[in-house]
Amino acid sequence: MIIILKPNADAQKRADLCEHLVTLGLDVDVSEGQTSTVLGLVGDTSRVDMGSLRILDIVEDVKRVSEPYKKANRKFHPCDSVIAIGEHTVGGDEFALIAGPCSVESREQMLSIAADVARAGATALRGGAYKPRTSPYAFQGMREEGIEILLEARAETGLPIVTELMDVRDLPAFSEVDVVQIGARNMQNFALLKEVGALGKPVLLKRGLSATIEELLMSAEYIMAAGNEKIILCERGIRTFETATRNTLDLSAIPVLKELTHLPIVVDPSHATGVARYVRSLSLAALAAGADGLIVEVHNDPPNAQCDGAQSITPEAFAELSEAVNAMLPIVRGTTTAR
Amino acid sequence: MIIILKPNADAQKRADLCEHLVTLGLDVDVSEGQTSTVLGLVGDTSRVDMGSLRILDIVEDVKRVSEPYKKANRKFHPCDSVIAIGEHTVGGDEFALIAGPCSVESREQMLSIAADVARAGATALRGGAYKPRTSPYAFQGMREEGIEILLEARAETGLPIVTELMDVRDLPAFSEVDVVQIGARNMQNFALLKEVGALGKPVLLKRGLSATIEELLMSAEYIMAAGNEKIILCERGIRTFETATRNTLDLSAIPVLKELTHLPIVVDPSHATGVARYVRSLSLAALAAGADGLIVEVHNDPPNAQCDGAQSITPEAFAELSEAVNAMLPIVRGTTTAR
Amino acid sequence: MIIILKPNADAQKRADLCEHLVTLGLDVDVSEGQTSTVLGLVGDTSRVDMGSLRILDIVEDVKRVSEPYKKANRKFHPCDSVIAIGEHTVGGDEFALIAGPCSVESREQMLSIAADVARAGATALRGGAYKPRTSPYAFQGMREEGIEILLEARAETGLPIVTELMDVRDLPAFSEVDVVQIGARNMQNFALLKEVGALGKPVLLKRGLSATIEELLMSAEYIMAAGNEKIILCERGIRTFETATRNTLDLSAIPVLKELTHLPIVVDPSHATGVARYVRSLSLAALAAGADGLIVEVHNDPPNAQCDGAQSITPEAFAELSEAVNAMLPIVRGTTTAR
Amino acid sequence: MIIILKPNADAQKRADLCEHLVTLGLDVDVSEGQTSTVLGLVGDTSRVDMGSLRILDIVEDVKRVSEPYKKANRKFHPCDSVIAIGEHTVGGDEFALIAGPCSVESREQMLSIAADVARAGATALRGGAYKPRTSPYAFQGMREEGIEILLEARAETGLPIVTELMDVRDLPAFSEVDVVQIGARNMQNFALLKEVGALGKPVLLKRGLSATIEELLMSAEYIMAAGNEKIILCERGIRTFETATRNTLDLSAIPVLKELTHLPIVVDPSHATGVARYVRSLSLAALAAGADGLIVEVHNDPPNAQCDGAQSITPEAFAELSEAVNAMLPIVRGTTTAR
Repeated sequence: MIIILKPNADAQKRADLCEHLVTLGLDVDVSEGQTSTVLGLVGDTSRVDMGSLRILDIVEDVKRVSEPYKKANRKFHPCDSVIAIGEHTVGGDEFALIAGPCSVESREQMLSIAADVARAGATALRGGAYKPRTSPYAFQGMREEGIEILLEARAETGLPIVTELMDVRDLPAFSEVDVVQIGARNMQNFALLKEVGALGKPVLLKRGLSATIEELLMSAEYIMAAGNEKIILCERGIRTFETATRNTLDLSAIPVLKELTHLPIVVDPSHATGVARYVRSLSLAALAAGADGLIVEVHNDPPNAQCDGAQSITPEAFAELSEAVNAMLPIVRGTTTAR
Repeated sequence: MIIILKPNADAQKRADLCEHLVTLGLDVDVSEGQTSTVLGLVGDTSRVDMGSLRILDIVEDVKRVSEPYKKANRKFHPCDSVIAIGEHTVGGDEFALIAGPCSVESREQMLSIAADVARAGATALRGGAYKPRTSPYAFQGMREEGIEILLEARAETGLPIVTELMDVRDLPAFSEVDVVQIGARNMQNFALLKEVGALGKPVLLKRGLSATIEELLMSAEYIMAAGNEKIILCERGIRTFETATRNTLDLSAIPVLKELTHLPIVVDPSHATGVARYVRSLSLAALAAGADGLIVEVHNDPPNAQCDGAQSITPEAFAELSEAVNAMLPIVRGTTTAR
Repeated sequence: MIIILKPNADAQKRADLCEHLVTLGLDVDVSEGQTSTVLGLVGDTSRVDMGSLRILDIVEDVKRVSEPYKKANRKFHPCDSVIAIGEHTVGGDEFALIAGPCSVESREQMLSIAADVARAGATALRGGAYKPRTSPYAFQGMREEGIEILLEARAETGLPIVTELMDVRDLPAFSEVDVVQIGARNMQNFALLKEVGALGKPVLLKRGLSATIEELLMSAEYIMAAGNEKIILCERGIRTFETATRNTLDLSAIPVLKELTHLPIVVDPSHATGVARYVRSLSLAALAAGADGLIVEVHNDPPNAQCDGAQSITPEAFAELSEAVNAMLPIVRGTTTAR
Repeated sequence: MIIILKPNADAQKRADLCEHLVTLGLDVDVSEGQTSTVLGLVGDTSRVDMGSLRILDIVEDVKRVSEPYKKANRKFHPCDSVIAIGEHTVGGDEFALIAGPCSVESREQMLSIAADVARAGATALRGGAYKPRTSPYAFQGMREEGIEILLEARAETGLPIVTELMDVRDLPAFSEVDVVQIGARNMQNFALLKEVGALGKPVLLKRGLSATIEELLMSAEYIMAAGNEKIILCERGIRTFETATRNTLDLSAIPVLKELTHLPIVVDPSHATGVARYVRSLSLAALAAGADGLIVEVHNDPPNAQCDGAQSITPEAFAELSEAVNAMLPIVRGTTTAR
C-alpha cells in the first residue's frame, strides 16, 4: 500500500501517522520528492482501512499495490486448480459441459432431459430445486423433492449434479449433492459463503450482476478462508445499460481471471443473454476465450417451462452444441498452448 | 399483459395459444390490425411467464401493462404509509433522522455518539452489530454484544434502534431491536425477506447496488406477501461507471417511488458517496427531492473508525446538518403541498 | 506520477527506465522498499503515456497523483469563476434559471414562451435551432430561421439566449447568440471544442451520457486550452442500468465538481429524467446540492411539442418552480455559507 | 405502435386522440378489454413522438412494435450485405483482418508495420492520422502527412487503408482513403454522419461507449438515409462498472446484430480491453461468436508508441493470431452453417 502525502504536509502530523502505521505492525518506506512524499507500507495491509487513511488532512491519496485476496491469487498458487466432479474434472484438460433445466419440474421431465444431455456428452447435470425468484408469486421450486429427483437422475445417468443453495437451513438436503451452486444474487451473502466454506465439496460460485472481478475473487476468498478451496467461478453476465440481452456477458473476464487466479471458470450463456438462440454462438465464444466449461440450460419443452423457457435450448440443440465444442476444442487448446 | 402476434401468424397456432391462455384462467381480447394482431390478457397474469410466450414462433413480443407488485403498489393503496418507530414516525409529516456509527465498536463509543445524535435531533439510532464485509479478513462486527450495547444506548437516550440482519439464524438476537435493516447485498436474499416478513416490526430495506426500482419494490412485495407491511425503503446509491463517488446516489428514484408506491423512502448519502464532505449537500438534496428521512453515519473519531471512517461525519457536523434540515423542511413541504 | 516496480526488477532495465524518464524532462525520486520500489516522477507528466509505462515487464503499476487538467483545476484557481450572461451571472450569488422549449418550432410559440418565462423570473432563454436527433427521420430543427426567432425573442424580453451548436460550419449563424451550448453527444467532439475555444462568448458544456467527471473536465480543458475560459458545466443525467427515468441524474457530481473545479455548474432535470412531473423535485434537489442554476424545458403545449414534449413543463409550472427556488435559495445559501 | 389507454379513459378525449392520430395519416385499431383498451397504430409511425403521447392523461403507456430503422433492418433486406474493400470483402465468406498502429507516427514505422501485417495475412491496414484524444495536451496525430504515409504504405503492400475522420472540414484529405472510420465518440455526431452518407466509399462505424445496439443501428441509418449503404459496424467495448478492462467487450452484440441487420460486423479487442495480452483470446472469441472480422492494433515497439502502446500487439503476435484465426475459421463457419 502506498500513501501519497500532500505537498507541505505538517511534519508533526507526518511523524504521528508513521508511528501509527508502525503500531499496526507495518514497516514504512519514505520517499521524498519535490512535489510529494510517498510512504510505502511493507507488511500485512489486509486489515488497513484505506478510507480512514484517505481522510487525514495530510494525505493526498492511498493506493493499493497488491491484491486483497491471497488464497485465490495466482501469485501465491501459480498452477491451475483442477476440481474433480464425479469422473470428470473442471479446470484441467477437459472442457466441462454442465447442462439441464432451469428448475426441476417433475420426475419425468428431469429424467428425460438427464438422459438426453448424458447421451449428448454432458459432464454434469444442473437443475434448480430451490429457486430464487424476483416475484413472491412465481414458482419457488420443488425443494427437497427436487433434490430427490436430481439424485435419481444421477443414479440413472451417472452424471454428477449441480444445484443451488439459497438458505443455510437447507444444507442438510444437500448432503448427497456433488456441487453446491451459489447464485449471483447471493454472491455477497457472506453467511452462506462461510457455511459452504465448511463443506468438503465443490462450490460453483456465480458472479453477481454488478460484482467486479475483484469482488468475485473476494467472495471466493471467503469460502477458501473458511477451509474449502474447491471453487469453480462462473461468469453469467453483468448488468449494463444495454437491454437487447438480459445482461451483458463479460467474456473479457475470462483472460483477466486466468491471470489473477488459479481457479477454473465456467460460463453461463443462458442467464447472460436470456435468449436461447444466442446460446450457441456465445458458448463457442466462451470456449475460444479460454473458459474451462459451460453451464447451459436445456429443456425438452421450452415454451412450457416453469421458468426461463426463453433461454433454454432443446436437447437436440445441445447435442449439436456439444459436437461443435468438441470440434473446436483441439484448435483452441492447440493454439492456446502455443501462446 | 399484451401479446403482439407476428404478421400472418398461423391461424391454428393462434387458436391453440388462445385456448392455452384461457386454461390459465385468463380472458383474451383480440385486436386485429392490418400489420399485427394484439391479444390483451385480462385476469391475474402474475404467474404468466412472459419469456415462455415470447419464444413461440407466432409471437412478436409480449409486454406487461400493469406492475408485477400489488401490496406495495400505490394504485391499490393511494394513501402514504406511515410507519411508527419509537415515538416518531417515518412517512408522514415528520422527517426521520437516523444517525449513528457504521459499526458498534465499543460501549463507550456507542453511548457517546448516541448521546450526541440524540441531543442534535436524531429520531433513531443506527449501528452495525453484524457487518457484511467484502473481505473475510476485515472486522466482522461485535454481534450479540453489539446488540446489547445498542439496547443500552436506547435505554439511555430513548432513541429506537435500527441495525442490520444478515443471517436468519441471528434473528433471536433481534427480538428487542426496533427496526431490522436488510442491507443492499441482501436485497434479493429471498430466504431472509420471507423471514422478516413474519416479524411484527418495521423493516428498513436497502436498494441493491444494481437493483432497478421495480426490483426494489418486488423485494418489498416479498416481505409484504409474507405478512409484514411496515417497510421503509432506502436509496443508497447504485453502481455506475462513475468512480468519483463510491456509488451514484439516484435521487430521481425518490419522485419515481413516490408515484409507484405508498411506502416511505429514506436516503443514505454516506454509503452512496463514501465521502463525508459530500454528505451535507446530498442530504439537503434528498430532502428537497421529497425523501421522508435520512440515514447518516456519524462517528466521534472518523480516522480511527473500524470501518467506513471516510464517510462518517462528526457529531458536530451532524448537529449542523440537523439544523439545516429543520430550516429547509417547512419550505420544501410548503412548496410541495402546492404541487 | 508514481511508478511501482515489480519485486526483483532487473537492475539494468530499471536504470534504462530512469534514464528514459530523465530524457522526457522529468526528475525521478526512488523509494526502495522491502517488497517494492516506487519511482516518483517530478515535472510535467501531462505528455507521459501511462499505458506505455505499464506494459514494461519491470513495472507493476503506474498511478497518477495529480489531475490531468490544469486551467479547469481549482487547485490553480481557487476562486469560483463567475460568467456574465446578459445582465445576469452564472456562478456567483445569483441562481441561473435558463428556460425555454426543446426546439424552436415557430415564431408564435417561441415569443409566447419567452414572454412567459421572462415574466416568471428566467435569467436566460433556451431553445434548439439545430437539433441532434437519434433518428434521421425526426424533426431536425428550424436552423438559421430558428436562430432569427431566438434573437427576436431576446429583443422582446431582454433575455440572453442559449442554443446548441452541432457543426463547426454553422458557426456564422451563432454570431449574435449569447451562450453556445455543446450537447452531451458532442462533449468529446474535439474539433468542435477547439472551435468554440476560439470564441469570445460563454459555452455551456453538457456532460456526455457516459462521461466521467474527469472527462467532462478534460473537455472543458480543451476549450480553455484554446483560449476561452467562460465555461458553464452542465450535469444532465448519465446512462445507467435503471430505466424508470431516461437517464440517472448524478447530483453527487455537484459537490464533487465544486471541489475539483472553479467553473459554475447548472443542472438539466428535463433531459435527465425525460418526465415533466419529476422536474420540480429534482430542480429543488439540484439547488440544495449546490448547483449554480437550472436549465429547464418549458413548452406552452407539451402534448403537441415537436420533440421531448414528455419532459417539458408548462409556463405555469415554471412560474411555480421559480417561486419555490426563490423561497429556498436563501436557506440553502445561508446554510451553505455556515459550512 | 401500440397505445394502452388507462381504465375508464374519458370517451371524448379518446375520440379526440383517435382523430389526431388519423390526421397523422395512421389507421387506428381499437381493442376493448375489461381492464384496458389498446389502440394499434397502422402506417408510418417513424415520425410519431412516443413521449408526447405518453403524457396524455388518458394514456397508460405507449409501446413500439417495429424497429425505428428501415434501411439497416434485416426484415427489409434479408441477405447479408457484403462490402468490397480493395481485393477483399467484409461480410461474406472472407474474414477481415484489419491491422496497424493506433497512430501513424513516422514513415519508417508505418511502412515497417504495414509490410509485417501484409505478410501475416492482414486484409486491410489501419492507422490514425487525425487522433481524438481526451487531453488537449496529448499527441494529436500527423494529419494530412499521416494520410500521405498511409497511401504510400498501400502502394507498397497493396492493402486498402482504413483511417478515422473527425471533422467534416478534413474530408478533402480522405479522397484516396479506402474506408472512412467514424470513431466511438463521434457515433452520434450527426453532422459527420450525414456527410459520410454522401460519400461513395465504405464507412466503418464504431459503436459509442454507451450506445445501445439500437442507437448504433440508428446511426447507421443516418448514413444510409443520406445515400451510402456501404457500412461496416464495429463493436469496441461499452462502458460499464467493471474497471479490470478499459471497457467491456459486448460479444453478445454480435448474434443480436446478426439478427437485426444485414450489415457486417467487425470487433476491436484492442480498444475494448486496453491490454495487449487479452487481444488474442478475445479475437478468437469474436470469431467464434460470428463476427465478420477484426480490427487490431499492431505496433513494432509498443512501449514507445505515441499512443495506446499498452493495447498494441507486436507483428509476431499478430502473425500468430492470424494463423489461429485461419485454423479456427473453417470449424466456426462449418458449424455455423449447420445452424
